[in-house]
Amino acid sequence: MQPTHNNPPTLLSWHNRQRQHLVYLPLNSMTTAMRHIDTLIYAGWVIPADPEGLVLEHHAVAIHEGKIIAILPSDVATAEFSAHLTHRLMSHALIPGLINSHTHAAMNLLRGYADDMPLMQWLHEYIWPAEQRWVDAEFVRDGTRLAIAEMLQSGVTCFNDMYFFPDVIAEVVDEIGIRAGVGLILVDFPTVWAKNADEYLLKAESVYQNYQRHARMKMVLAPHAPYSVSDEPLRKLARFAEDHQLPVHMHVQETADEVRQALERTGERPLARLEKLGLLSNRFMAVHATQLTDLDIEYLLSYGAHVIHCPESNLKLASGFCPVQHLMDTGINVALGTDGAASNDDLDMLGEMHTAALLAKGVAQNAAAVPAARALTMATLNGAKALGLDEIIGSLTPGKAADITAIDMRSLSTQPIYNVLSQIVYAVGREQVTDVWVAGEHLLKASTLKSIDIHELNAKIHQWHGKIAATRHTGD
Amino acid sequence: MQPTHNNPPTLLSWHNRQRQHLVYLPLNSMTTAMRHIDTLIYAGWVIPADPEGLVLEHHAVAIHEGKIIAILPSDVATAEFSAHLTHRLMSHALIPGLINSHTHAAMNLLRGYADDMPLMQWLHEYIWPAEQRWVDAEFVRDGTRLAIAEMLQSGVTCFNDMYFFPDVIAEVVDEIGIRAGVGLILVDFPTVWAKNADEYLLKAESVYQNYQRHARMKMVLAPHAPYSVSDEPLRKLARFAEDHQLPVHMHVQETADEVRQALERTGERPLARLEKLGLLSNRFMAVHATQLTDLDIEYLLSYGAHVIHCPESNLKLASGFCPVQHLMDTGINVALGTDGAASNDDLDMLGEMHTAALLAKGVAQNAAAVPAARALTMATLNGAKALGLDEIIGSLTPGKAADITAIDMRSLSTQPIYNVLSQIVYAVGREQVTDVWVAGEHLLKASTLKSIDIHELNAKIHQWHGKIAATRHTGD
Repeated sequence: MQPTHNNPPTLLSWHNRQRQHLVYLPLNSMTTAMRHIDTLIYAGWVIPADPEGLVLEHHAVAIHEGKIIAILPSDVATAEFSAHLTHRLMSHALIPGLINSHTHAAMNLLRGYADDMPLMQWLHEYIWPAEQRWVDAEFVRDGTRLAIAEMLQSGVTCFNDMYFFPDVIAEVVDEIGIRAGVGLILVDFPTVWAKNADEYLLKAESVYQNYQRHARMKMVLAPHAPYSVSDEPLRKLARFAEDHQLPVHMHVQETADEVRQALERTGERPLARLEKLGLLSNRFMAVHATQLTDLDIEYLLSYGAHVIHCPESNLKLASGFCPVQHLMDTGINVALGTDGAASNDDLDMLGEMHTAALLAKGVAQNAAAVPAARALTMATLNGAKALGLDEIIGSLTPGKAADITAIDMRSLSTQPIYNVLSQIVYAVGREQVTDVWVAGEHLLKASTLKSIDIHELNAKIHQWHGKIAATRHTGD
Repeated sequence: MQPTHNNPPTLLSWHNRQRQHLVYLPLNSMTTAMRHIDTLIYAGWVIPADPEGLVLEHHAVAIHEGKIIAILPSDVATAEFSAHLTHRLMSHALIPGLINSHTHAAMNLLRGYADDMPLMQWLHEYIWPAEQRWVDAEFVRDGTRLAIAEMLQSGVTCFNDMYFFPDVIAEVVDEIGIRAGVGLILVDFPTVWAKNADEYLLKAESVYQNYQRHARMKMVLAPHAPYSVSDEPLRKLARFAEDHQLPVHMHVQETADEVRQALERTGERPLARLEKLGLLSNRFMAVHATQLTDLDIEYLLSYGAHVIHCPESNLKLASGFCPVQHLMDTGINVALGTDGAASNDDLDMLGEMHTAALLAKGVAQNAAAVPAARALTMATLNGAKALGLDEIIGSLTPGKAADITAIDMRSLSTQPIYNVLSQIVYAVGREQVTDVWVAGEHLLKASTLKSIDIHELNAKIHQWHGKIAATRHTGD
């Protein structure tokens, strides 16, 4: 794939070889002064994710002031740039930082707290009592730190969260340097975060005001689910979303029971009700969506709404199968999420891509469904689109933020390499992620987290484990 | 779980606390001389897999002459044994070595060679031409070495193989020290291994004669599939299996197309035909079995046959869903396999357990299906049963071989730990496997392979990759 040169390579000569879209700076601005940049990463493979399926061998990514400014053949990069920091990752593949489009980060403290039981028993006997007893600002702070540590270690650079104390979540995101959609939660029932719908909305507005201009955060309205939020608060939320053009992130039609109960209570399916309440738009993310009729799909499509697919959580809770390939065939944008660690039980987006690509084939009864390149798109650019951030992140594209994940391809488990994209989706493990940059900041460096004190974090987890385990329902 | 003692602990005092089944040596043989043993492994958790679900905290496994002789609380072990080698793995869980009950190890050299296309295109345009061109004794030798390296690194101590050149496979198994079921392949069509059914059978008999008494190998008859082996060779094979009481390992009813075509050609479903030909017995392993009627299940059950479930391969090739929980409810033994790396694309049995536990819930529409403890049983003891090796391997039981896998539980991705079994199945990654023993031999030590020259292996893979990639059909 690398161009061959008789003359010394130049950016212009390479530029003329039809790869204009990968160079951001206008060529006439490439003065000598511009050639000194912050960071240059050479890699064995660069996989931009846009266009889907493109694999560039022996290329380099040039980064300046937190942004990607060019992606170009290694020899051209050497000729054109000098960098303050140079990384030579010749056995690595660079991919866009993964986007976990649905999680409840703080629930990492409840990872493995209860498993292998029917959903209602799991919620009523374990998860809700544990949350009621333990969730407070410090639980959210420590749980979110643990989740971010796990996500950075496995190549995630942005997560879309939904949990209590979004103010604390925002503080942790600010502190660690990752990127996030911060869900401003709304439910009918009282919690330690808010006592009624009005207070949830007031607090949502307050967090929104404090963080709306943060460079690495997007405020996202997060009504929990159709069955847990009543009409009036949803109408207010819809107006707020419209006024401020905010994304809305909601569990929708996760199980057949949910749809059946909605029909009994309201006479209509959840998506039909949400449509009437003004929730649907091209800023709406329907999480799970395992129970979809043609009419439901028509609603999602006509509004340009997004589906967030969480295959491992859907399997573990036996919620049903999201018809992923069919949705994408109709034109709906489908992104990927891990859900929370209490129902997954990891936040490993490489694993989630793998599961999504496999499960889609089984469900569609078609081995060509969700090919590897598409799975990567779902875990990157499609997540950015769902969050309304696709002009900033989601692909390795000059002009976008330098949110980048490096994967060491030397493991015996990924040898030999005929098709690096296929190996990444079907054979790479999270342990092969060695380096992660967010907005050009090197947050994971040679497998070491640079902005998280692991020793302190482990001590906190140990404390929480002691307290929570001592009071755990021990039916098993 | 650890007993408390007022007096110094003794094996007898502990023994009397109802854990007799974990001590193999009769107490009256525990002379002073017997207390000096080969190896003592202390661990944070010991999970014997038999009885299913048992977790012993702060226990030790005592090993002598390749066998487990006792599993006992750490303090009791210290009082009773002195060992030539002592390992202190206090943050680790010990589980029985994982058993990969179906693979084609040598196909590791074709990992990622072709993906994301319909089964027939995948076979006819990619896999079969590549095999026809490249498979020879050296391909099998190097591919099998790569596969064994990958399996040991991810905690597999025994694999059940089906491929050409079983003589070479046996040589490699002997050399590296892993345990294996060596499939003596039979197909109608000519290959570089044999030119017709009679020659396949002759060669099978020859390999059987050479290796039948090998301590770490079980000879297994491996007719490829009902559609690829005709009646007469199958009858001969059935007689050979009966005469020598050998297991039979066969792809059966993998896809709906296979069953439909069998009905067209023979007028009966594959399992009915195999029954008439005398293939079914309690030594028969039906691999895949995604297409089962009640009558098929009745056949399997009445003969005590085993099903080998390969969830990731079934998903990737869109073959269908094996009704795992239902089969186990009827009493059929279900074990787990990865299938070959060309259709998976890894030989990671931890990942396969995870997928099996998740997928079974989705398929059964029951979040309680295949709980974590059962998934571990499928990947260990059930595999041993299928191979007829359950008196030797499959659980950490005094008297069985010391085939043991140690998993480091300190990763942030598996914190906190409320239920170590749940973490192993749902959150552990292959990279957390640090140590593996087969028959007491330490084949993976602190993540380093001790009986494989990695440098040489990588050089061989590099050579094969160069040759094969250069001639690869490049439709993509």
